[in-house]
Amino acid sequence: MTAASVAAAVPAGGAGASFGSRLADVLETSGGLCVGIDPHAWLLEEWGLPTSAAGVRELGLRAVEATAGSAGVVKPQVAFFERWGSAGFAALEDVLAAARDAGLIVIGDAKRGDVGSTMDGYAEAWFAPDSPLRVDALTVSPYLGFDSLRSTIDRARQVGAGVFVLAATSNPEARAGQTARVAGPDGTSRTLAAGIVDQVRDDDQAAGETRLGSVGLVLGATVDLASYGIDTAALTGVPVLAPGFGHQGARVSDLTALYGAAARTVLVSTSRGVLASGPDGMAAAVRDAAEEVRSCLA
Amino acid sequence: MTAASVAAAVPAGGAGASFGSRLADVLETSGGLCVGIDPHAWLLEEWGLPTSAAGVRELGLRAVEATAGSAGVVKPQVAFFERWGSAGFAALEDVLAAARDAGLIVIGDAKRGDVGSTMDGYAEAWFAPDSPLRVDALTVSPYLGFDSLRSTIDRARQVGAGVFVLAATSNPEARAGQTARVAGPDGTSRTLAAGIVDQVRDDDQAAGETRLGSVGLVLGATVDLASYGIDTAALTGVPVLAPGFGHQGARVSDLTALYGAAARTVLVSTSRGVLASGPDGMAAAVRDAAEEVRSCLA
Repeated sequence: MTAASVAAAVPAGGAGASFGSRLADVLETSGGLCVGIDPHAWLLEEWGLPTSAAGVRELGLRAVEATAGSAGVVKPQVAFFERWGSAGFAALEDVLAAARDAGLIVIGDAKRGDVGSTMDGYAEAWFAPDSPLRVDALTVSPYLGFDSLRSTIDRARQVGAGVFVLAATSNPEARAGQTARVAGPDGTSRTLAAGIVDQVRDDDQAAGETRLGSVGLVLGATVDLASYGIDTAALTGVPVLAPGFGHQGARVSDLTALYGAAARTVLVSTSRGVLASGPDGMAAAVRDAAEEVRSCLA
Repeated sequence: MTAASVAAAVPAGGAGASFGSRLADVLETSGGLCVGIDPHAWLLEEWGLPTSAAGVRELGLRAVEATAGSAGVVKPQVAFFERWGSAGFAALEDVLAAARDAGLIVIGDAKRGDVGSTMDGYAEAWFAPDSPLRVDALTVSPYLGFDSLRSTIDRARQVGAGVFVLAATSNPEARAGQTARVAGPDGTSRTLAAGIVDQVRDDDQAAGETRLGSVGLVLGATVDLASYGIDTAALTGVPVLAPGFGHQGARVSDLTALYGAAARTVLVSTSRGVLASGPDGMAAAVRDAAEEVRSCLA
C-alpha cells in the first residue's frame, strides 16, 4: 500500500482522521441529508435509462452529480448493482470513484453479516485502501452476534472508515425479532435491538472516540424506539443512519421528536423522494431536502 | 428469457422441478457432502496461487473439478470473491458456470438480508435465469424478519431454486441473540432461532412440498439444538445446511446424534477440511469426505 493510496482512502479531515470525526465535520458543514442511490428497475425506466448495468451506472453517476454541493453523504444500495453481476459491480466501482472525487462521504449499503473469518473477506472488499469498492462506511448485520463483527470494526477503524450496525430497522416485519428479549447475566433482559445499541455505544467509548464514534447504528424513523427499550439520551456520540422518512411514513419535521438529543448526529436517508424527481429535477430536489433537514434542526 | 435459458437454470430433475426435489435426488444419489469453496488469502498461498481475482478463479475451478463425480453440492463463499470487486465477481461467474456444467447443485453463500423491495434486487441477481450469478440456492439472513424474505422465496420457487435461512449458526458469539425470546400472541415465547425453524417448516408445508422443501435452514453442527428449543423431529422435510464440522469441532460420526431423524436431509458442509489438501490432494479428500458422510448414515 502506498502513502498515496492510504490518503485516497481517507479523503477528508486529513490522513488518519477517524470516520466519526470526518462525519462530524460533514454534519456541521453540509447537514444530515444522506442520498440513497437505489436504482430500482422502475426508476431506471422513469429516468429513460436501460434496465442494465449501464443504466445503474448512469443513474448512479447522475445522482452523485446532483448531490455534490448540496449534501455531504451518499449511500448506494449494493443490491441494485449486484443484480447485474460483475458488470453491475464494475458500474458500482465507477459510481464510488465519482463520489470520492466529489468529496462525498460514501456509505455502502450492503448489510453484510457472517462469521468473523468470512467477514474479513468483506472487510477487505469494502475497506482495503487498494480495493475498487472501498467506502467510508458499510452497513452490517448482527444476526451472527455483535462480536462476529469485531475484526470488521477493527479493520474499518484502521483505515479511517466505519460501520453502521443494523439495530431497529424501519420495516414492520422486523419488529418481532428485534424486540426479542436477550437475557443478561444478572437476571435482567433487554431487547435484541437495545443490546446492539449498548454494544455499539460501549465500543465507540472504549475506542476513545469522544466527538463522534466510527461505529454507528441503523435506527429506522418509523420505529417507536422507546417501545424497543432504546433511550435516545444514551445515543450521544453515536452516529445514526435513519431510513424510514418520506415514502415509508416518517416526517423530517419530527426529527427531534424521534431522536431527541441525538437528532444532530442522525443521517436522514432519502432515496425515492429525490430520485423520483428524475435526472432534470434531482439536483433541486436534493437541495430542498438538505435544506429541510437543516431547518428542522435550526 | 428463452426456453433454453430457463432449462439451464433448472439443470437437474427436469424443467419445472423444485429445488427441494432436485436436492432430494442428489442426496439419494451422491450423499450429503457439500464442498464449501472459501478461497481465503492463506489458502491461495498454500495452493501457490496469486492473492487476486485470478487466484480465486483458479482455486474455484479446481475445487469444482475435484468435487464433480464424488459429491453433488458446492457452496462458494461470496465474501472471498467480493473481496476482489467486479473482477472477483467475474471470477465467481466463471466458477458458477463450471459448477452448473458439471451438474452440481450450487449454493451461493451470501447471507443477504434486507427489506423486501431491496431483497428483490438480490433475488434477481441470484435467481434470474439470465443472471450470470444464478445459483440453485442462496443463503439469506432473517435479521429484518422472516417475512422480509417473502418475495425472495417466491422468486426462488418460481425458477426451481431455493434459499437456506440462517437460524442457529455455528459461531459461539451468535448464541445470545439467536436464543433471545420472541413473545407469541398467546403469552408463550420461543427462541428467535426456533421461530425461524417453525416459519421455514410451515412455509415448505404451505407450498405443498411434501418430499423435501425448497426453503431450508442453516443449523450449525456445533449448536446444542435442544437448548435453543429446536426439536429435530420437527425438521422432517426441511433441508438443513450444516456448517461446523471439522475445524470448528463437530464430528461427522455424530450426524445422527446431532440431527436425529433429520440427518438424511442434512448437507454436511466442509471447506478447509478438503481445500487444505491442496490442488493435487483435494479430489481424494472430497472422495473420502463424501464416503464418510454416506457411511455415517448407512
